[in-house]
Amino acid sequence: IHRAKAGIVTSAAKSLDILRQNIQKSLNREINQVIQKYMDKFFVLGIKNIRLNNGAKAVSDEHIQAVCRQILEEAKKMYLADSGRRSVTPVLDIPDNVSETGSTGTQKSLLIGRKRRLSDTDSE
Amino acid sequence: IHRAKAGIVTSAAKSLDILRQNIQKSLNREINQVIQKYMDKFFVLGIKNIRLNNGAKAVSDEHIQAVCRQILEEAKKMYLADSGRRSVTPVLDIPDNVSETGSTGTQKSLLIGRKRRLSDTDSE
Repeated sequence: IHRAKAGIVTSAAKSLDILRQNIQKSLNREINQVIQKYMDKFFVLGIKNIRLNNGAKAVSDEHIQAVCRQILEEAKKMYLADSGRRSVTPVLDIPDNVSETGSTGTQKSLLIGRKRRLSDTDSE
Repeated sequence: IHRAKAGIVTSAAKSLDILRQNIQKSLNREINQVIQKYMDKFFVLGIKNIRLNNGAKAVSDEHIQAVCRQILEEAKKMYLADSGRRSVTPVLDIPDNVSETGSTGTQKSLLIGRKRRLSDTDSE
């Protein structure tokens, strides 16, 4: 049974990852738009100041790309279950006709911004 | 001179990182909204199917958080200079009164979606 169970768990992860791969490109586009917006709003002035003080070459493409990578690295921490901090898990309103708990309402399996376990079924 | 130069380069990176830290929270919120939108649109059905086939417990919070982290890990690749692929660097319209090249136009130092080096000044 263990092996079968392990099979299920990995195949769930695999299926989800295949799905992710298919939408990563458009996700990238939108994530990039968010980052671009913040770059324009906040970083332009900062970079201008650094250049004023340290010369035009003080800030390179690599600096700015490193900041973008760091933004995303930090954002990953939102989705760390054991981070102790309020972890964020996306809300998914999943129609609940398979739920073992027999609850009739929609099973809000995961909740953004509030730490909710999968088991907290919610029949609002 | 080398040490001084090194000082400039690290202090530029440090200043940019301090700036990033100050806006990370609202960046997180917006990045999370993008991810949530895609979760609702694409993952709800996928998860429902996996559960239909493998039981309600086949997809856990951890699965979904792992997918979110992987989305961001993949998105980081947009900002890798040597990735060979078209690297993405945010466009920053930086007023150019310090540019050594003497060009009068705005120095578009970095360009989204098009691989442009910092040195390509642009006086459109």
